Amino acid sequence: MKKIAVINGVNLDRLGVREPEIYGANTLKTLMESLKKEAAGLDVEIVDFQSNFEGEIIEKIAELADAGVELGIINPGAFTHTSVALRDCIAGSGMKFVEVHISNIYRREEFRHHSFTAPVCIGTITGLGMDGYSAALRFLSKM
Amino acid sequence: MKKIAVINGVNLDRLGVREPEIYGANTLKTLMESLKKEAAGLDVEIVDFQSNFEGEIIEKIAELADAGVELGIINPGAFTHTSVALRDCIAGSGMKFVEVHISNIYRREEFRHHSFTAPVCIGTITGLGMDGYSAALRFLSKM
Amino acid sequence: MKKIAVINGVNLDRLGVREPEIYGANTLKTLMESLKKEAAGLDVEIVDFQSNFEGEIIEKIAELADAGVELGIINPGAFTHTSVALRDCIAGSGMKFVEVHISNIYRREEFRHHSFTAPVCIGTITGLGMDGYSAALRFLSKM
Amino acid sequence: MKKIAVINGVNLDRLGVREPEIYGANTLKTLMESLKKEAAGLDVEIVDFQSNFEGEIIEKIAELADAGVELGIINPGAFTHTSVALRDCIAGSGMKFVEVHISNIYRREEFRHHSFTAPVCIGTITGLGMDGYSAALRFLSKM
Amino acid sequence: MKKIAVINGVNLDRLGVREPEIYGANTLKTLMESLKKEAAGLDVEIVDFQSNFEGEIIEKIAELADAGVELGIINPGAFTHTSVALRDCIAGSGMKFVEVHISNIYRREEFRHHSFTAPVCIGTITGLGMDGYSAALRFLSKM
Amino acid sequence: MKKIAVINGVNLDRLGVREPEIYGANTLKTLMESLKKEAAGLDVEIVDFQSNFEGEIIEKIAELADAGVELGIINPGAFTHTSVALRDCIAGSGMKFVEVHISNIYRREEFRHHSFTAPVCIGTITGLGMDGYSAALRFLSKM
Amino acid sequence: MKKIAVINGVNLDRLGVREPEIYGANTLKTLMESLKKEAAGLDVEIVDFQSNFEGEIIEKIAELADAGVELGIINPGAFTHTSVALRDCIAGSGMKFVEVHISNIYRREEFRHHSFTAPVCIGTITGLGMDGYSAALRFLSKM
Amino acid sequence: MKKIAVINGVNLDRLGVREPEIYGANTLKTLMESLKKEAAGLDVEIVDFQSNFEGEIIEKIAELADAGVELGIINPGAFTHTSVALRDCIAGSGMKFVEVHISNIYRREEFRHHSFTAPVCIGTITGLGMDGYSAALRFLSKM
Amino acid sequence: MKKIAVINGVNLDRLGVREPEIYGANTLKTLMESLKKEAAGLDVEIVDFQSNFEGEIIEKIAELADAGVELGIINPGAFTHTSVALRDCIAGSGMKFVEVHISNIYRREEFRHHSFTAPVCIGTITGLGMDGYSAALRFLSKM
Amino acid sequence: MKKIAVINGVNLDRLGVREPEIYGANTLKTLMESLKKEAAGLDVEIVDFQSNFEGEIIEKIAELADAGVELGIINPGAFTHTSVALRDCIAGSGMKFVEVHISNIYRREEFRHHSFTAPVCIGTITGLGMDGYSAALRFLSKM
Amino acid sequence: MKKIAVINGVNLDRLGVREPEIYGANTLKTLMESLKKEAAGLDVEIVDFQSNFEGEIIEKIAELADAGVELGIINPGAFTHTSVALRDCIAGSGMKFVEVHISNIYRREEFRHHSFTAPVCIGTITGLGMDGYSAALRFLSKM
Amino acid sequence: MKKIAVINGVNLDRLGVREPEIYGANTLKTLMESLKKEAAGLDVEIVDFQSNFEGEIIEKIAELADAGVELGIINPGAFTHTSVALRDCIAGSGMKFVEVHISNIYRREEFRHHSFTAPVCIGTITGLGMDGYSAALRFLSKM
Repeated sequence: MKKIAVINGVNLDRLGVREPEIYGANTLKTLMESLKKEAAGLDVEIVDFQSNFEGEIIEKIAELADAGVELGIINPGAFTHTSVALRDCIAGSGMKFVEVHISNIYRREEFRHHSFTAPVCIGTITGLGMDGYSAALRFLSKM
Repeated sequence: MKKIAVINGVNLDRLGVREPEIYGANTLKTLMESLKKEAAGLDVEIVDFQSNFEGEIIEKIAELADAGVELGIINPGAFTHTSVALRDCIAGSGMKFVEVHISNIYRREEFRHHSFTAPVCIGTITGLGMDGYSAALRFLSKM
Repeated sequence: MKKIAVINGVNLDRLGVREPEIYGANTLKTLMESLKKEAAGLDVEIVDFQSNFEGEIIEKIAELADAGVELGIINPGAFTHTSVALRDCIAGSGMKFVEVHISNIYRREEFRHHSFTAPVCIGTITGLGMDGYSAALRFLSKM
Repeated sequence: MKKIAVINGVNLDRLGVREPEIYGANTLKTLMESLKKEAAGLDVEIVDFQSNFEGEIIEKIAELADAGVELGIINPGAFTHTSVALRDCIAGSGMKFVEVHISNIYRREEFRHHSFTAPVCIGTITGLGMDGYSAALRFLSKM
Repeated sequence: MKKIAVINGVNLDRLGVREPEIYGANTLKTLMESLKKEAAGLDVEIVDFQSNFEGEIIEKIAELADAGVELGIINPGAFTHTSVALRDCIAGSGMKFVEVHISNIYRREEFRHHSFTAPVCIGTITGLGMDGYSAALRFLSKM
Repeated sequence: MKKIAVINGVNLDRLGVREPEIYGANTLKTLMESLKKEAAGLDVEIVDFQSNFEGEIIEKIAELADAGVELGIINPGAFTHTSVALRDCIAGSGMKFVEVHISNIYRREEFRHHSFTAPVCIGTITGLGMDGYSAALRFLSKM
Repeated sequence: MKKIAVINGVNLDRLGVREPEIYGANTLKTLMESLKKEAAGLDVEIVDFQSNFEGEIIEKIAELADAGVELGIINPGAFTHTSVALRDCIAGSGMKFVEVHISNIYRREEFRHHSFTAPVCIGTITGLGMDGYSAALRFLSKM
Repeated sequence: MKKIAVINGVNLDRLGVREPEIYGANTLKTLMESLKKEAAGLDVEIVDFQSNFEGEIIEKIAELADAGVELGIINPGAFTHTSVALRDCIAGSGMKFVEVHISNIYRREEFRHHSFTAPVCIGTITGLGMDGYSAALRFLSKM
Repeated sequence: MKKIAVINGVNLDRLGVREPEIYGANTLKTLMESLKKEAAGLDVEIVDFQSNFEGEIIEKIAELADAGVELGIINPGAFTHTSVALRDCIAGSGMKFVEVHISNIYRREEFRHHSFTAPVCIGTITGLGMDGYSAALRFLSKM
Repeated sequence: MKKIAVINGVNLDRLGVREPEIYGANTLKTLMESLKKEAAGLDVEIVDFQSNFEGEIIEKIAELADAGVELGIINPGAFTHTSVALRDCIAGSGMKFVEVHISNIYRREEFRHHSFTAPVCIGTITGLGMDGYSAALRFLSKM
Repeated sequence: MKKIAVINGVNLDRLGVREPEIYGANTLKTLMESLKKEAAGLDVEIVDFQSNFEGEIIEKIAELADAGVELGIINPGAFTHTSVALRDCIAGSGMKFVEVHISNIYRREEFRHHSFTAPVCIGTITGLGMDGYSAALRFLSKM
Repeated sequence: MKKIAVINGVNLDRLGVREPEIYGANTLKTLMESLKKEAAGLDVEIVDFQSNFEGEIIEKIAELADAGVELGIINPGAFTHTSVALRDCIAGSGMKFVEVHISNIYRREEFRHHSFTAPVCIGTITGLGMDGYSAALRFLSKM
């Protein structure tokens, strides 16, 4: 059975708590459960992981790559805009990632318009809310 | 039956002809036909339109908005990076658009990283190839 | 009888439809009719033209110049900020234009603060709503 | 009877003396007298004031606002490009100003293209010579 | 008895009048009286001064320095962002200043984020409203 | 009894060890003890926390917000200039923070003049040494 | 017989009319006729085309490429500096173009120093007046 | 007898008091007296003026120009870097100025490297201390 | 016996795994063992440490400094370009570091050309592969 | 007989040796011989000169100008992007130069897109390989 | 007898030949002779040197410094704006230089407003024509 | 026997004379002699060259490449930051260079942080003093 990693970065454990008017009221746990159900229907197993530590995310991606996981969905949160280390880690992992953002980052502050990670991912999805994860899943399930 | 506009901008009539190593070998016609089939299964009617004229696209969007079409997918091509007029038109139409790019524009030249239209769309999808249209369709079909 | 051209650019056919909270509820047609009445009182004939095509505006200005029209009012809409071609056309026509914007463009996004056309016009009027056209008309009628 | 303030900033007392090839040969006094006559015909009283001191202009605007004057025309001269204090004063006064420049500042040095005061005014008029004041007057007289 | 100067710059005489939703409803006079009372309890004499003229502030600081006053609180208002002259005057006076801003200037326009005077002061306090003066007073009273 | 969090970021455990000519000779422990005594006199309980890990600080703030703590003092150290994640966390927590820096960051390198966190705090205090914490405490104790 | 396309962009129909002190007094028609004569001597057939519409030029290039024309001379006029679409079209056509400008664009305004199209052409010729076309023709005739 | 104006700007009344390690220990009064003596030997009369008010300097220059004084030495102090108004005043006066700075402004902060006034003066002298005035005087005395 | 710390930052545990065409096929463990052998011959003891966590590196450096280690080699990996915290930690430790990069960072993306840490190290070595560590070791062993 | 100078700058003596995949395999000597033959047919004498020293090129141009040579072709090599001195020399010589580059400098690094010399030449030719010299020759031979 | 070096840089051998409307009609030789006469009257010996080679100027300054010459006047010509090497040489020589420019470089192109050498000289004189050398001589003769 | 070139650029002949507090007291001659001894022990012959002329260095590198020397150490001095010509020469030579700087250029002025030559060298060594040459030698001797 095909495995797809879903990596959620900094502050995403606060989904449904933090600023619900921007990010919606569902928690990350609910989101991941529903994504796993959808994945099962596509014959895909989701391996999900969240951390507020850049270092933990980097080590998790390395571990997944070593274990042979080839595909991933990543929402790095604010690390998107500041982490060269995460960029290097994704590039070095050999995995194929789709970068997802729940809100439309282009409607927010200027400094959120630049992504260090997008150039080393296959593509990006922004502003579709929770559906962004689902769209990325469907895309990757066919690779 | 719900209508969703699919607007393809400048040079997209060249799909399958222009630089197939970047954009793939399918023509726009093939793509739109397959998208329409997928839409039918979702009980959605696709209204598609392509033009190399910024002015024609702007008038088409105005016409669609007047006719009550509320949702759209738009791949403005190179107008993305230069057309303030298209941005104004989208903002003024009251329609909800998802911006789609076939290639990952963040892997290409610097000037392709800036989008005038993204801030007035709901969200964006890049780099998923033809599947980007499909993902946008599914998202909009549920609105 | 003296002739003054009034050129309205991209999206201005949407006046009264597009974002009325910014641009007011009168249509372009109403505006032009009232401007023509005011012009008649000043012994001036208005030749008005609107297009969403940069190319059509450029050709219209060339045509007017060839026909001996020497004065004009121009609201280029979004072309203001991007069209070097329009700038060249105005400079080359030998006509004297006053640039008019309905809203105060300096209160809007940064990229609207730069005008390619202003340096080749006699002057500019912004933020006076429909009255901007009228003020320009009075000014030109005395030249 | 409605009152409209006309504030002229730094170096404008030199009108008709300083660089007449750019600013014309009329003095400020002549200009203000003719503007007052025009105002009388519109049932408007002009309160005019000129100073080369940023501080005096700021205190005058505060005094006018306290006295209930609600409308104004301001030509800040070179303060346009450098005075955050004047911007704050205009914003804080609650008065509605039209910013006027005699010459087309967009045809001059780059540093004259930026205005600190324009974003807190209703609109701007540039390059119409003395007629700019007149156009602003007519506009404000109808508010 | 120790003396501390309190210098308020441009537009601060409008406190309680100008934009009370940002700056609060107390007047500068009320603020200074209450600050003097607090100072008395700390065995400190307040010498306060306000001007809308950069030149007057500069001469006052020179005069205070000549009179042996060694400490000061300064809220330059908008001069913060534009006055190299005030910076030179503070640096040249030998006095130790704390720079105070009533509002949080980092939440406002970009051009308010730069201060010419902060590098020549001991420290800065922003966004604490009237309490900013009080905190500066307590700090300086212990020097 | 009112609770106020005091969050100290990266390298601040080195206070009194690291570069005492800039930061003074007191250790963080001494500072926090003296701050707690001052707080007790104001009927406030201090919850203090220091970490060199961005992730730990973010999780602590989330934990404090969940526990109902509404006010905080934060000295993010070098994270001030680089951490979008911390900014998001503060904004999302709903807590009110005062940002404190021991030294005057405007006297140091250019890259220390920009703060990602200041715009989501109530205000800032810089350069008052250890007294900055005390001033912030007094201010927050009255909210 | 070898075919070479000669594409003239926006405002070039005004040659001989527009600003003759910069561009010379010959019309585009005269220029093209003389170029065709020169081409005949080199056993080359010229296909010439002019439009003020970016879209028309783009479609013409696509049509020429489909018809097997492999070489071209292009003077995009002001589109040079703004049209990413034209750049994409040239790159996608597989044709080899030499970019020609009649005047020396490096002696004119700063924004004319940047060319979007030059990087996808074989080379550029500027400032040689009408002879630039001739030089490009000779070069291409030998390919 | 030829007249030469010597205008000293903001903070220059503090010469000999302010930072003597940079500017030397002589007062402005001493400097001007010695300059007048030197002038007398050259058959020149010095008219000297100092002010900390931009407005006063501007009005003094206008007054001198009206009185027929054609030559001047100006040390604008910090106004050099910020005053567009002073630049306009010098340009409008028709007078010929040499700009003098006592210290070498190119050894100091970056923002002191730009001068608004230098382009409207004949030339500049920096870093020669008090001798800069003397060199300017000798140069102007021969015009 | 002299001690030299060798600190390897983020992603360097992936040496020999990650992108071997850039970084070579040896693992970090092999590299460190061979470096320790070389050190032994120089009468130096190597204390090596690797972490993907900025916070752990910072605490390790503080701990080493407290233990009296005075010299170090540091390859911060991607933290080089983003970590002000690491810079502060190095500066505050009093230790002397040589910064080493395995690849020539000047041949890679623009954002890798800037180093926050280089200005607080003694010197830097880039592009010499594993030999960079060896060269740094020899240099430090003689201090 | 008309004389045309051909000046080749730094590294151009390495033509045919240096990076033949970019610059082609012919040597400078071969190129110049063939150019001289072509010139003879046009009744023109070529005076060619190459140097890797900016100073020698500058002195040669001065010498040619003194000897009455009025026309020239110059390929400054890398001096194009860095030499203000060469620009001044060309401007001061009164000679008319066409600037030639063998490769298309707009396809190479960003710093090669700026030319100090182009604004003081008649025109430029880039990317036509050795034919660029020939095109320039024909153009100049007709002046 | 005191020695003062006078170093003239690139293109200055063309004085009186090159663009006399900017630089005047006297040759460098005439200028130097007259300067030497003036120097003799001040009991100073002038050692003058001109070169169009950066390397020759650098070696001459080193040679002069070794020979004990402590003072100099330098007009680097265009090297002013581009030569870090010359800056290093001046700084390393220990000599005290006054930088002189014949024309007012602030009235010319933007790139002439920056000087690499000014920060390592005592002061600068611009725009006084040949008198600039004379003023520098008098100043240095008194050191 | 393997040959390694050692190229020293502008001002490096002044080593031991110029600013010994930055560069140390040894002369270049001493350094080169000691380097040659070290090289002999590694079975390497050093060919050393110094020049203050960019052109001489460029011609020397070309000559060395023609003579079959494949490796080099280069300290371009200030040419590092300004010479595109040197960069082109190194890239075109086919030789492998290590770039060495005696001081840590990242601790000095901003303009010294950029190197034109580093991207065409194998690697760089800065701040290790004379040992930098030695480290480069050892590295190259093993290639």
